[in-house]
Amino acid sequence: MPYQKIDAQHLQNLTLLCGVTNVHTNDEELIRCASDHTEDLHYRAEVVVTPETVQQISEVMQYCYQNNIPVTPRGAGTGLSGGALPIAGGVLLDMRRFSKILHIDKQNFQVTTEPGVITQVLQETLLAEGLFYPPDPASKGSCFIGGNVAENSGGPRAVKYGVVKDYVLNLEVVLPNGEVMWTGANVLKNATGYNLTQLIVGSEGTLAIITKIVLRLIPAVQHNMLLLVPFRSAVQACEAVNAIFLAGYTPSALEFMERDAIEWSMKYVQSSAIDLPANVQAHLLIEVDGNNTDQLYRDAEAISDIVQRYDVGDVLFADSHEQKQILWTLRRKVGEAVKSNSIYKEEDTVVPRAMLPQLLTIIKQLGAEYGFHSVCYGHAGDGNLHVNIVKAGMSDDDWNNRLPEGIRRLFAEVVAMGGTISGEHGIGLVQKRYLDIAFGNTAMQLMRQIKQVFDPRGILNPGKIFPEK
Amino acid sequence: MPYQKIDAQHLQNLTLLCGVTNVHTNDEELIRCASDHTEDLHYRAEVVVTPETVQQISEVMQYCYQNNIPVTPRGAGTGLSGGALPIAGGVLLDMRRFSKILHIDKQNFQVTTEPGVITQVLQETLLAEGLFYPPDPASKGSCFIGGNVAENSGGPRAVKYGVVKDYVLNLEVVLPNGEVMWTGANVLKNATGYNLTQLIVGSEGTLAIITKIVLRLIPAVQHNMLLLVPFRSAVQACEAVNAIFLAGYTPSALEFMERDAIEWSMKYVQSSAIDLPANVQAHLLIEVDGNNTDQLYRDAEAISDIVQRYDVGDVLFADSHEQKQILWTLRRKVGEAVKSNSIYKEEDTVVPRAMLPQLLTIIKQLGAEYGFHSVCYGHAGDGNLHVNIVKAGMSDDDWNNRLPEGIRRLFAEVVAMGGTISGEHGIGLVQKRYLDIAFGNTAMQLMRQIKQVFDPRGILNPGKIFPEK
Repeated sequence: MPYQKIDAQHLQNLTLLCGVTNVHTNDEELIRCASDHTEDLHYRAEVVVTPETVQQISEVMQYCYQNNIPVTPRGAGTGLSGGALPIAGGVLLDMRRFSKILHIDKQNFQVTTEPGVITQVLQETLLAEGLFYPPDPASKGSCFIGGNVAENSGGPRAVKYGVVKDYVLNLEVVLPNGEVMWTGANVLKNATGYNLTQLIVGSEGTLAIITKIVLRLIPAVQHNMLLLVPFRSAVQACEAVNAIFLAGYTPSALEFMERDAIEWSMKYVQSSAIDLPANVQAHLLIEVDGNNTDQLYRDAEAISDIVQRYDVGDVLFADSHEQKQILWTLRRKVGEAVKSNSIYKEEDTVVPRAMLPQLLTIIKQLGAEYGFHSVCYGHAGDGNLHVNIVKAGMSDDDWNNRLPEGIRRLFAEVVAMGGTISGEHGIGLVQKRYLDIAFGNTAMQLMRQIKQVFDPRGILNPGKIFPEK
Repeated sequence: MPYQKIDAQHLQNLTLLCGVTNVHTNDEELIRCASDHTEDLHYRAEVVVTPETVQQISEVMQYCYQNNIPVTPRGAGTGLSGGALPIAGGVLLDMRRFSKILHIDKQNFQVTTEPGVITQVLQETLLAEGLFYPPDPASKGSCFIGGNVAENSGGPRAVKYGVVKDYVLNLEVVLPNGEVMWTGANVLKNATGYNLTQLIVGSEGTLAIITKIVLRLIPAVQHNMLLLVPFRSAVQACEAVNAIFLAGYTPSALEFMERDAIEWSMKYVQSSAIDLPANVQAHLLIEVDGNNTDQLYRDAEAISDIVQRYDVGDVLFADSHEQKQILWTLRRKVGEAVKSNSIYKEEDTVVPRAMLPQLLTIIKQLGAEYGFHSVCYGHAGDGNLHVNIVKAGMSDDDWNNRLPEGIRRLFAEVVAMGGTISGEHGIGLVQKRYLDIAFGNTAMQLMRQIKQVFDPRGILNPGKIFPEK
């Protein structure tokens, strides 16, 4: 059945459900919600709805379900796989008014929050109470916690503390037909029925709308220390990553940046904080944390000794707040810096950690073969490498028609190494044509049927995750 | 459609698929597989099959799927919710021949194992390589890792290190129709499609047969220390649990044992290791671990100081291997000790940690009201309390007809506290009549439909998890 278009009657009914201040058809809203942080993509919804209550979401979903109107949920729009783009038009369900932290349970190290809270705001609010919610995507200053849950986001700290899925205990969700339910319980251990919570985490808004999130927290960690290590070989930098773990250390962050990544980022933020001799090919940014500063210094020294086995320059120890801020800002801004430089595609490859050197080598080989320049950086400690492929001088034809073949070959190599095609950005719109590389027919069919169970009419975030048949 | 009975033709065909040494109809095998560690339940299968290869499992499943023969998978039969009981007869699929650890990947801190490996054997093999797989159910000396995955098991160390689900990266499974697939990838971060891996973990053998397991590992921890703290009030012992966490400590185990638990366990193993003055009501068994012994002693001292705020006896510090073994044996044997003492039912309640004192109080109130004696113990650090209800002098009528009402009220209280009805034992056969307390109609319906997606003919482990309609 084809989707219905939004007509005056639909607008009037949506306004009855949500109020006139929450139904938007002006250009400003439609344009704002037409893109996220993915490439240069734009898709306009027919109407933007900003519900204020779970009841309103339930009623909007019921209405759209009955009338076969597509609904695309949106957090802060910082996604990198196009998950929030309303490619079928219809209703864009903007969650920005769900911005309350509902309950900080200090006794149980838990927080219940609405999905529209900015991740960094949530983290800082909790930290003021001595509580720590670790996952910290690069966009933490603007992304919503709900989007993080929908995409199963990671970030630098995942290497020690895990990703979003490791903190979600329970979710309140609204199903496509408007029904409201909780997926689990507010407990650390749960062997009761199927794990619906983890089925929703990372489902990219295709199964249900997340309206409340219960997260487990850990005690705040007192101290950390940051090391920046320049390498004369990018492949050696990748090798050093594994050596650190094999020596028994688990840093709280272990980030890799190719020369271009850090150079472009410095240009973008107009910084000259880091000296970049011509023979430096890559950096590792290594954070250790803990409550015992003596131990921290010992760990940092030991890690420094390990990296000295490679061809490295002077190791920079950053222990002032300001120094650390500068280094983290440079790391976090790499993505934006590349985006400001050229049209680009971002691949979010992830492999078993020890395969990183091999992955980097293959990326560069494919780049030579397909004529693309790549800027690689990311969460090396997790084996998660972001490959930014910049268009630069590539012809439109090569970009549109030849490059996808190169990406397909890259992903095939990644999967052959035991890895997969997205570590933390999701499949969304831009990676769905490659999903068959990660999953065979059987698994793909199961996932499609699960989608069908939750969303039998296919109105929720259509055109995402699954390749066109 | 009713299930087919196993006739001579079916036996012949199964023998063709698996070989004569792998198809068993003798009493010994049928009786062995008729019970697990759950209560005093016995259900005979019609045939026990012990396949040796994934291909054989695939062909057996295909055959049973086509012929509508129920199949119940079984690990080591140590389950506590009756998940491995072949209540519909048919084929009992015994996984004991899948006993190989296939690949220890030291470089990536991963292991690929077959499901029929005994958990402790796996742990010790890994430890010899400097690798640590933490989840340690009480039955670790006899249970299989596959059963642990199927039930999402926990154990004492979950409080610091998490449960089985936190270590499973990827699974090879055989679907009810015989198709073989992998659920994910061998990576620490994965945002690629729905989380089928976590859907299988804890699904109690109702969705698929697990044939290979990829686990993430962590570096071995060098040292630990054990404290045994006697409390004169069991409720105060529960209160002390939370005080330890609020002070910022995360022990590697934090176990609660009521007086009866430890007394019965000592009798059962014929030990007098622990002095039990008449006024001691409960013990906390607290383990701290780490690589720095100075830090470990400091932590142990700090925790000892915290518990001294309560009405406690002398704290026992165990740092010799032998002392620690004795204490852990007493703790691990509580379940068996209770079982040897009387017919009993085990409830696996779990609540947010700070609610433990309230939970214990309610259990005792309901005991008074319904005339049952309970022995409570378990993973207090996780809010996970095992409630062993002993039949002792209770009439059969009260046991069979009145007690379930009391359990229902207990579970309702647990859920009202934010908890749920099983923390680590699963729902299986014996808790399914209570599942509606944990989930509303909407969630229950979704779970039933997911079961239908994987197992449209309902042949795999029938009669488990879901209440009769």
